[in-house]
Amino acid sequence: MRGVESLPRLRSIRGMKTPILTPLAESLPATVPFVGPETQERLRGRTFEARLGANECLFGPSPLAVAAMEAAARDVWMYGDPECHGLKAAIAAHHGVTPAHVVVGEGIDGLLGLLVRLLVGPGDAVVTSAGAYATFNFHVAGFDGTLHRAPYKGDFEDPEALLALARQTGARLIYLANPDNPMGSHHAASVVSAMIEALPEGCLLALDEAYVELAPEGTEAVIAADDPRVIRFRTFSKAHGMAGLRLGYALAAPALAQAFDKVRNHFGVGRIVQAAGVAALGDKVHLRAVRAWAEAGRLRLGQIARENGLLPLPSATNFVTMDCGRDGDHARALLKALIARDIFVRMPGVAPLDRCIRVSIGDEAAMAAFAAALPLALADLG
Amino acid sequence: MRGVESLPRLRSIRGMKTPILTPLAESLPATVPFVGPETQERLRGRTFEARLGANECLFGPSPLAVAAMEAAARDVWMYGDPECHGLKAAIAAHHGVTPAHVVVGEGIDGLLGLLVRLLVGPGDAVVTSAGAYATFNFHVAGFDGTLHRAPYKGDFEDPEALLALARQTGARLIYLANPDNPMGSHHAASVVSAMIEALPEGCLLALDEAYVELAPEGTEAVIAADDPRVIRFRTFSKAHGMAGLRLGYALAAPALAQAFDKVRNHFGVGRIVQAAGVAALGDKVHLRAVRAWAEAGRLRLGQIARENGLLPLPSATNFVTMDCGRDGDHARALLKALIARDIFVRMPGVAPLDRCIRVSIGDEAAMAAFAAALPLALADLG
Repeated sequence: MRGVESLPRLRSIRGMKTPILTPLAESLPATVPFVGPETQERLRGRTFEARLGANECLFGPSPLAVAAMEAAARDVWMYGDPECHGLKAAIAAHHGVTPAHVVVGEGIDGLLGLLVRLLVGPGDAVVTSAGAYATFNFHVAGFDGTLHRAPYKGDFEDPEALLALARQTGARLIYLANPDNPMGSHHAASVVSAMIEALPEGCLLALDEAYVELAPEGTEAVIAADDPRVIRFRTFSKAHGMAGLRLGYALAAPALAQAFDKVRNHFGVGRIVQAAGVAALGDKVHLRAVRAWAEAGRLRLGQIARENGLLPLPSATNFVTMDCGRDGDHARALLKALIARDIFVRMPGVAPLDRCIRVSIGDEAAMAAFAAALPLALADLG
Repeated sequence: MRGVESLPRLRSIRGMKTPILTPLAESLPATVPFVGPETQERLRGRTFEARLGANECLFGPSPLAVAAMEAAARDVWMYGDPECHGLKAAIAAHHGVTPAHVVVGEGIDGLLGLLVRLLVGPGDAVVTSAGAYATFNFHVAGFDGTLHRAPYKGDFEDPEALLALARQTGARLIYLANPDNPMGSHHAASVVSAMIEALPEGCLLALDEAYVELAPEGTEAVIAADDPRVIRFRTFSKAHGMAGLRLGYALAAPALAQAFDKVRNHFGVGRIVQAAGVAALGDKVHLRAVRAWAEAGRLRLGQIARENGLLPLPSATNFVTMDCGRDGDHARALLKALIARDIFVRMPGVAPLDRCIRVSIGDEAAMAAFAAALPLALADLG
């Protein structure tokens, strides 16, 4: 994460009369939740050899989706359907719900922002885990909510602690990722179901399932389509291999799903994006191949970790988080050494999770580059 | 515009404990600013023969942009650069400013939403013209601003009236489109410059230049890059022929431009979108061809209008607004008759502008279909 930067106050420019931000906007730092690898490459003056830091799916998108994008590119003079009718129908069929249960948006990031906007007013309490997905926190700050953080329990988000904190603070919203990022851990579906049953009155569970297609059977929670206590989020960035597309969706009870129409950017999901989503959902063979590829990749990354004295944590995702065996300073030094050796990886930002580095599954070349660089980077630390 | 719909209250579902929207979100109608032609086609059970209602550019995108999108589709497993470095550099070079003056976003629609969020708090006054771009109004309502509307002066947005209303209401923000949509009229650059000089203290001009590449020389306002009193918006949806891409940008003084980082969806402009934007900006030949095509199309639409007893208004855009010579009911009846004859067109929503229909320039087939349908639709009215 980039630190808080000091911006010139808007008033000060050349002494001219200028717009003044709202007090809330004025108070917000100009942080970005994540610094992209391209920014790092520009600062370094050198490209990365292996791009293993953003949990992208190096297996790539479905060939059917690529063909659909190419065809849609030629028709891109037309606005996309603002109701995303075909895409919502495809998603609904995929999940056995109706299109009224589906919200489509510009990635889970965009949808989380809209959800927070709909539910969280100034000072409203929101609960997440200390070290969980930073972009959610960005949105809570952006709408002036008050964020409360429960610690992880070991390498797992802790449903009991989240619920207790929600009860204590009167939270409107709890964020839980299952599987978890950045640790790669997961809870069984039954744990999530029990958490939903125990939610305090008036508190919604935002269940981020970005990685669930890559998780073991029995991870995906069984939730009634009309259950108003939970909204679940899915993405085409991970198992579908299209992070650069920007397409996510949410499944929720129709009243909540429809409420997004009050605030969303109605034409925000464009024509190419919609076509790609429909095609990708239709390619079950590709999804199975990605699952098999991810399983093999987890084993390979685990092997590389162990060969170098790191402990690979069990992963239900397309990345492996590796316990470096010491403290955050040690892991940060290793991260820095890997980056210096042209390997783009990231790591958890909060102790004690920050004893780890987080490595995405790569293609053969990227995995080989990581395997070659890791012992050298460890040696660099002395 | 779709009317206000009554949503089921979130509390009511199955009697279960449910999330409660913020009072602001609860108060917002689930309107959409524009109903897409696809929705109309589904309701009609029949596709349109001519798609002339959304001011899309039927000339299509640059072949260089199509090639860039196709190449980027194959690399879409990578997130796009969240800083849009290459695209911002290309935009900056195109306009002779620095990348720090550029904001990139999910269409002008998305950027207008962020601007309103940054500047407009509950009850803050905002000024626009009665009948101007509906999506801006949607955003002002969405952030609880109070919208004040100045009437058009003839078929022109009225800078004097907008300024007077802004002074009277203490507005934070004035919206002006130049050229104007839905009337197609434009002001000379000097009029806009004079308006900027006369802005009240602390009031920002949001200058929507979506159509300016298609306007006569001398329309584009000359604004110092660091002028903090105005933010101008451009799009790749109109002259660049990529409405379905969802890419717009804003030019503003760096402090305001950077403030968007506080609230934007950092990965919202994806990899394909960025590639298309860079390629399109580089294809000056295509832009000249679109300008010539638009000029010819305006003449052709004007001729069709006159042949049928309608008065084509002078247009600086890729559409021609046609005065039907009577009141709003008459024009609405004509619109309905055209739609029944499979011609998708739209019309201004507010009197007295609503005496007109608004027809986008089409390709040869669409223009011919419109020319054939118009006399029949007029005859349908009796």
